[in-house]
Amino acid sequence: MSIHVDTSRSPHARLRPVPLGAVRLTDSFWEPRRQVNRSVTLPSQYRRCEETGRIDNFRRAAGKIGGEFQGRYYNDSDVYKWVEACAYVLAEGPDAEIERMLDLVVREIAEAQEPDGYLNTHFSFEKKDQRWTNLRDLHELYCAGHLIQAAVAHHRCTGRADMLEVALRFADHICGVFGPDGRVGTCGHQEIEMALVELYRLTGHERYLTQARLFIDRRGQTPPVIGGSSYHQDHAPFRRLDAVTGHAVRMVYYCCGAADVAAETGDREYLAALERLWDSMTNRRMYVTGGIGSRYEGEAFGEDYELPNERAYAESCAAIGSVMWNWRMLQITGEARFADLIETTLYNAMLPSLSLDGERYFYQNPLADSGKHRRQPWFECACCPPNIARMLASLPAYFYSTSEEGIWVHLYAESTSNLTAGGGHVRLRQQTRYPWDGEVTLTIEDTGATRPFALMLRIPAWCREAEITVNGDPVHAAGEAGPVYAVVHPPDGGPWNAGDVVRLSMPMGVDFLRAHPYVGNNAGRAALRRGPLIYCLEQAGSGADPRDVHLDADQPFSVSWHPDLLGGANVLHGSAVVRRPTGPWAEPALYDLAEVCDLLPVEEREVQIAAIPYYAWGNLRPGGMAVWLAMR
Amino acid sequence: MSIHVDTSRSPHARLRPVPLGAVRLTDSFWEPRRQVNRSVTLPSQYRRCEETGRIDNFRRAAGKIGGEFQGRYYNDSDVYKWVEACAYVLAEGPDAEIERMLDLVVREIAEAQEPDGYLNTHFSFEKKDQRWTNLRDLHELYCAGHLIQAAVAHHRCTGRADMLEVALRFADHICGVFGPDGRVGTCGHQEIEMALVELYRLTGHERYLTQARLFIDRRGQTPPVIGGSSYHQDHAPFRRLDAVTGHAVRMVYYCCGAADVAAETGDREYLAALERLWDSMTNRRMYVTGGIGSRYEGEAFGEDYELPNERAYAESCAAIGSVMWNWRMLQITGEARFADLIETTLYNAMLPSLSLDGERYFYQNPLADSGKHRRQPWFECACCPPNIARMLASLPAYFYSTSEEGIWVHLYAESTSNLTAGGGHVRLRQQTRYPWDGEVTLTIEDTGATRPFALMLRIPAWCREAEITVNGDPVHAAGEAGPVYAVVHPPDGGPWNAGDVVRLSMPMGVDFLRAHPYVGNNAGRAALRRGPLIYCLEQAGSGADPRDVHLDADQPFSVSWHPDLLGGANVLHGSAVVRRPTGPWAEPALYDLAEVCDLLPVEEREVQIAAIPYYAWGNLRPGGMAVWLAMR
Repeated sequence: MSIHVDTSRSPHARLRPVPLGAVRLTDSFWEPRRQVNRSVTLPSQYRRCEETGRIDNFRRAAGKIGGEFQGRYYNDSDVYKWVEACAYVLAEGPDAEIERMLDLVVREIAEAQEPDGYLNTHFSFEKKDQRWTNLRDLHELYCAGHLIQAAVAHHRCTGRADMLEVALRFADHICGVFGPDGRVGTCGHQEIEMALVELYRLTGHERYLTQARLFIDRRGQTPPVIGGSSYHQDHAPFRRLDAVTGHAVRMVYYCCGAADVAAETGDREYLAALERLWDSMTNRRMYVTGGIGSRYEGEAFGEDYELPNERAYAESCAAIGSVMWNWRMLQITGEARFADLIETTLYNAMLPSLSLDGERYFYQNPLADSGKHRRQPWFECACCPPNIARMLASLPAYFYSTSEEGIWVHLYAESTSNLTAGGGHVRLRQQTRYPWDGEVTLTIEDTGATRPFALMLRIPAWCREAEITVNGDPVHAAGEAGPVYAVVHPPDGGPWNAGDVVRLSMPMGVDFLRAHPYVGNNAGRAALRRGPLIYCLEQAGSGADPRDVHLDADQPFSVSWHPDLLGGANVLHGSAVVRRPTGPWAEPALYDLAEVCDLLPVEEREVQIAAIPYYAWGNLRPGGMAVWLAMR
Repeated sequence: MSIHVDTSRSPHARLRPVPLGAVRLTDSFWEPRRQVNRSVTLPSQYRRCEETGRIDNFRRAAGKIGGEFQGRYYNDSDVYKWVEACAYVLAEGPDAEIERMLDLVVREIAEAQEPDGYLNTHFSFEKKDQRWTNLRDLHELYCAGHLIQAAVAHHRCTGRADMLEVALRFADHICGVFGPDGRVGTCGHQEIEMALVELYRLTGHERYLTQARLFIDRRGQTPPVIGGSSYHQDHAPFRRLDAVTGHAVRMVYYCCGAADVAAETGDREYLAALERLWDSMTNRRMYVTGGIGSRYEGEAFGEDYELPNERAYAESCAAIGSVMWNWRMLQITGEARFADLIETTLYNAMLPSLSLDGERYFYQNPLADSGKHRRQPWFECACCPPNIARMLASLPAYFYSTSEEGIWVHLYAESTSNLTAGGGHVRLRQQTRYPWDGEVTLTIEDTGATRPFALMLRIPAWCREAEITVNGDPVHAAGEAGPVYAVVHPPDGGPWNAGDVVRLSMPMGVDFLRAHPYVGNNAGRAALRRGPLIYCLEQAGSGADPRDVHLDADQPFSVSWHPDLLGGANVLHGSAVVRRPTGPWAEPALYDLAEVCDLLPVEEREVQIAAIPYYAWGNLRPGGMAVWLAMR
């Protein structure tokens, strides 16, 4: 089954996944971006991987070419993520260009493998004796994890065995070295854990699950295995963690692995720790965009409420890792808050990292900027670009799940899907302009279901009053203010019939959001949200430095659709006040007496501002940008 | 002459220095701390240098012991700074224990020198072939600079030649390698520049001045000599710089070197650049404490107005470097703003880095904290501790300068000084409780002056209305609101007579300071200042989390002297309001609708708060601390 996280047989997961190819997006928001991903982003990433020696490193390891290893020691992982992205693309249908590139790359990978199953191009030839010598810093098992994830995806989506055989040989090699009776090691950069669980799900071989659990449980021991720092999440066992700390991507990948193990084993201590970590992240260490990891230093989580705007790190990969983790939590629990955060993060933390043309990327995602921070075509450390590509390629898999109860609708976009519920096949159509408005029409286009089943419709947290009708009749669903799944049953107690129509109406207003008072840099400020989208103000769109703009809560915003702006977007129009010091004090002192500052002459003028979705910032001419705006 | 920066003969410096031993502090603020520095800090630093192999590295380089080089490649510099500090101590009088340690260390240093003059213990034996191969990263010339500064101080303060001979041999070696016709290199960490100018001032050898200038002018070239980054201040020539960027300590040491060259050469482009850099630093990139370098990442200056509180880096060494740079600017110009910043920085950015017991240090100096950041007994990178020691040891040199006009009084503390003015000797006594109040009595205790001369009394920026009397008669000095030097002439047009008394009265109130509105994290907040001291609120002193405290500008503060608290301090007492969410919403969501947040039930209670001087924070039991407090 062409699925990225296969909880189909996980005893402790409530929800079951829907294959990638079963959901056909036809919307004008995601699908054009996914088309760019297929036709522009993935080919350009292949070229970058060739130009930067990432593919040559495999050729070199295979002995086909000479020269030095090129780039960073973890560069193999970028190629693997690219392979995974290509596999997901092929799950939805053939693509000759993608297939050609993918076949070439998979062959190079396979031919670089050592006879004993080992595969990491950095540790070949002159560095061979350094294998497994520095697990904390050299990302060796991390690269192996990406190889395994890519191979599982490749097998599931193309049906081919060549890359999977490579991964199985390497996984067996790893289990041999690091198994229960083997070397007590674990990787400084988590990733292998979730990969091994997925390999277990594919093959049924218990040793991979056991190994994943071992890699998790080896952290936080006394004496420590990899240094004992909270940066490496090695300061306490996973079961005892109560705050997200250290390198943000590693932290959320760690949680993915632990959630995967818990879905298979039902480990209550893992689940309790996951709950505490989710609370720590979402209630104290997360941007309003869903972005995480506020510190440049170490790409790390900060302290509680440490969420600077200009210096937000909010790595694109961390947002993607958060989506991956929340997806696993959602599959285990069926709780809407996880799907809600997936949505928030996809629109506002993952998507900003990609330019509209699909060829430039943000690594960091600040919430305010002077215009200096611009998307780049590539990075020396290029973890983010292929991660964005695989996220977009796998996006349809995040739209639905199924369960005994029926069909869970997590995300909204124009689409047609072939699902299984009520003992039979169901073709479900979504019609909506989401995220631009909150009207969603779900039509049972065809059904072979033999039993009644429910539709679980996610009501997002931003929605205070959803209304639902079935064939025009209002229904009182289980809950109407998000985040919750509204449970919608078929009419008249019977099974759904072809032609049945469910309408979900979620009125979208312009919301002013506040931050917790301990987020000192947001004191007196508000962020604008409409539906699932966080908005921002760009100097290019309003003619004023966003730092000078003061909103008025009593001034309503109007919403207008601009089909030609930034790929088509709803813009929020309103009036605000620009406050600028004037006269001889045109530039206030950095510090001065309150009695002086508070009496400085200030010019106030009304301006019309046009706020754009945050994901689209940085595509106009460089200038100031801010999500959090001063309030009068 | 036992002086640290000898502008006595600098053609482009307006002021002349006063020897260290000429100023005898007898106050109860600085002198007890300096006593701790001599009797506790310097001996304990010697022990740390022994324990960590820093002295052994010299023994090893001399071939006296075996083993590996210990610690970081720049560890020699810590020893040199310690030597410099000890030399300054001896300038004020004999100290058997200091002399014993110093002689031992100087001997080890001298014996480690190579026959060709080279001296860096990291680049000995197996690393000998790496000498001068990586000037950008390996701090080789930086260490040489500290050796030279220490040697100059050692010679001036003790009259001995042994360490100076070492430095001269090494300096000649360096000039041979890097001279006008030599290798085009410069150091990634500035320091050698000011050291070479000081060696020129001592010896009169032009080649050292030339070499200092060369090292400065080799930055910012095309193609770049050390990589071209603004982090290394290599993106543009010094003459064209207009913003302080990159590593903060390097930036201000760079400015020290350039100011030193300008004092000797009068280079107008250097002086103009120094002015622009000072404007950039003081008006856009400096904490209210005088601390600089706001970023953990790279210990670097941030963008304009990027001045986070909890995550302030504000390295102790950077504050010290700022004092050193401002001292040079003051000597060149005689402008009070430079002395003012020296005072602010000494009290509020340098001094906080040392514990009251003199044995623990801050490397970073946040302006707000949860109680986790505590002073440490040592650091693997131990640049700060000996830098603090040499600053305290050299402190008396910062009190006065002289010029044709007379005596410049920069700093205030109870003291007796033997100065030269009006063609003769002048014994000047200061009586004051500064910084606790602003009443200063200056008495001409003895004078051999044959001509009238003026007293230039610094009126700090915090003082809006200074009053001055001479022998009881009010004088209208040149200026009364700081920062300015009030020019006070002797009575009746004649020379000063023994017994003449000048009283300076600078009323101290409790000031509420505001930050520039672009410092987003200080919006709606105020900092408390009284006289030269910035205050802070500690949870330990007020029982409330400083994040919950809201000041009221209409509530006056009272001041009371607490002789037993924190070494004796004026405490600011006032009432404030603690605002805490209450009821079912006791912990507000991280983000929520403004209409919800603004209506959350909040408990307000009045509390009596006691603000302490910021320099003393972190000496009570751990808890929250903040300089910038919310205003109602």
